[in-house]
Amino acid sequence: MNTDQNKLPCSYFRDTKPLLLENGTTIDELTVAYESYGKLNQDKSNAIIICHALSGDQFLASKNPLTNKDGWWNRMVGSGKPIDTDKYFVICANVLGGCLGSTGPTSINPSTGEEYGLNFPVITISDMVNAQMRLIQYLEIDKLLSVIGGSMGGMQVLEWAASYPSSILSAIPIATSSRHTAQNIAFHELGRQAIMADPDWSGGNYIKVGTNPNKGLSIARMTAHVTYLSEASLTKKFGRRLQDKEEISFGFDADFQIESYLRHQGLTFVDRFDANSYLYITRAMDYFDLEKTHKKSLTEIFENTDIKFLIASFTGDWLYPPSENLMIVRALSAGGADVSFVNIESDKGHDAFLLEEPEFDDAMRGFINSISIEAKI
Amino acid sequence: MNTDQNKLPCSYFRDTKPLLLENGTTIDELTVAYESYGKLNQDKSNAIIICHALSGDQFLASKNPLTNKDGWWNRMVGSGKPIDTDKYFVICANVLGGCLGSTGPTSINPSTGEEYGLNFPVITISDMVNAQMRLIQYLEIDKLLSVIGGSMGGMQVLEWAASYPSSILSAIPIATSSRHTAQNIAFHELGRQAIMADPDWSGGNYIKVGTNPNKGLSIARMTAHVTYLSEASLTKKFGRRLQDKEEISFGFDADFQIESYLRHQGLTFVDRFDANSYLYITRAMDYFDLEKTHKKSLTEIFENTDIKFLIASFTGDWLYPPSENLMIVRALSAGGADVSFVNIESDKGHDAFLLEEPEFDDAMRGFINSISIEAKI
Repeated sequence: MNTDQNKLPCSYFRDTKPLLLENGTTIDELTVAYESYGKLNQDKSNAIIICHALSGDQFLASKNPLTNKDGWWNRMVGSGKPIDTDKYFVICANVLGGCLGSTGPTSINPSTGEEYGLNFPVITISDMVNAQMRLIQYLEIDKLLSVIGGSMGGMQVLEWAASYPSSILSAIPIATSSRHTAQNIAFHELGRQAIMADPDWSGGNYIKVGTNPNKGLSIARMTAHVTYLSEASLTKKFGRRLQDKEEISFGFDADFQIESYLRHQGLTFVDRFDANSYLYITRAMDYFDLEKTHKKSLTEIFENTDIKFLIASFTGDWLYPPSENLMIVRALSAGGADVSFVNIESDKGHDAFLLEEPEFDDAMRGFINSISIEAKI
Repeated sequence: MNTDQNKLPCSYFRDTKPLLLENGTTIDELTVAYESYGKLNQDKSNAIIICHALSGDQFLASKNPLTNKDGWWNRMVGSGKPIDTDKYFVICANVLGGCLGSTGPTSINPSTGEEYGLNFPVITISDMVNAQMRLIQYLEIDKLLSVIGGSMGGMQVLEWAASYPSSILSAIPIATSSRHTAQNIAFHELGRQAIMADPDWSGGNYIKVGTNPNKGLSIARMTAHVTYLSEASLTKKFGRRLQDKEEISFGFDADFQIESYLRHQGLTFVDRFDANSYLYITRAMDYFDLEKTHKKSLTEIFENTDIKFLIASFTGDWLYPPSENLMIVRALSAGGADVSFVNIESDKGHDAFLLEEPEFDDAMRGFINSISIEAKI
């Protein structure tokens, strides 16, 4: 990507109080780029944080200035929508380590005056949440009505609930896991290897050298993308249909629509994402293991919690399958938590949480309504 | 790989009669490198062809001269084993397009005197089978007792049964499909893109230029390898265990065992496989669509066939899942074919057919025995 991340049209919170990271080092000048929708009410009780996924950003319900496309959760968040911005104040922050304005590997390292690159510290999901907590404190919000997120967003939700139980009323982790499995790590490792194998990655110094590992990042994105869709959805969407031709070409061009689609996904991703950010964020996800971080079992972490949970999974999701989500439900139930669980019948794969799934929308709307009634909003 | 493929210790069949390919061109000098085990009986009725998978080779039950490891199906083929070389004459040929002695992109193009490279014609599964048929004719075998193979080997088995029904008595396609799905194509496309993105691929001319796309081929292999294992087997084998360390390193080295394992798989593969062969063979698999090739439905292709089928699938195989195999079973049954089906309970993933699965061995032994009794061997 070739965009100055500090010039994106959104809000910025800057904090010069060092942020202590899980690896023991600090971020001395923290920037959190964020978008907000709706209005914070007088007693600041209607705030909801939505945590984005690996390739997501803060532009969840507004036009993305890089792609000029609608926000990635436009369907879910807005006036009259399940997360109703007429009622709630919705915040979405670019994650720490990201490349859309929050401090990350493309930011200037205050101690050298140059981009961090690979000198950026390896961060964790808990570091991301701590950066968001700083933003919430800055906004003087004592208690969030809800913390919501899918995929990596769901990991942040779990971390929020584990680390700041008194700061949140409800939590909605969606299509996620309490720790990355070997298969999850494996797919991320493929992407990282593809990036680092690209000579234009230049040992991580591509900004300085003036190159960009487009090919590597593109392959990483293609790999991830295949894991976001189910076999059934790929078959329905593409099958063995050919792209702009009647017969196979007996060559290595994109004969099949699925090839052409994946190449397009890869090529467009490099315009909006930074390769080193991709390394850091996937690493944070791989390191995610709630029990290990908190040195307790899942049940113990959430024992007697007051937080109300809604957990949602999708039957066609093989990346963070229902079984992974159900594991969290069971642990919460065992600890006496107030937990609702919906397993949505869908053949859309992991991406289902971003797509048209009316049953899911209904569950979200119903749960958030009931929480807001309880909170007297 | 840096081995002269014509010097590998195995048998070679050379044919100067041009082989007409599905794309309309010809291979003017065909070499088929093969291994055989057991003895052909007097009436030549005990011959079995075993077709290898994408990364397989002819050394199925003998030491592989490149890796010095046991043959890839040593467990299944040998004296007293399910495919008993005391009774049967077992042939395994390196596929057309391969890199272990049979004609492929590393062979010399007789019309130029140089390696084919990307001038090698894009071949299909049916071309591979036609090359094997030449070998069978050369060995003067009129009827094969059985044609057996897993994965891409299974595709060749189906093609054998569709194209040469009078030349085979029985067929055992294992863990396979009658056409590559969009998801199958997608994973192959990732591998091809990784190879072609490697500058050392040199536009396919790496042999001439003196480079080798080790990084790209390595990533292609890693990608494929993840698809060969189930989530359950990865969890059992590796889980989140760390490699030679007590704590995560907060870096991009191989912290997890799964990362270290995949890197090793990638690195060792480049010593025994050629990158262009990988492109051509994956392409042949992607093009595989039995109904399209034969312009008939599966049921029509095999209507009233005399071939006896055993089809085997594995519950943990998500690459060629039971449903894909069952589709073949249903079509065969609808056409009145004699078909047995075993769906083996296994959490080992697609690779299960290569691994210790006693129930599978029993099914193989039983079926082949019954065929041999019928054939009076």
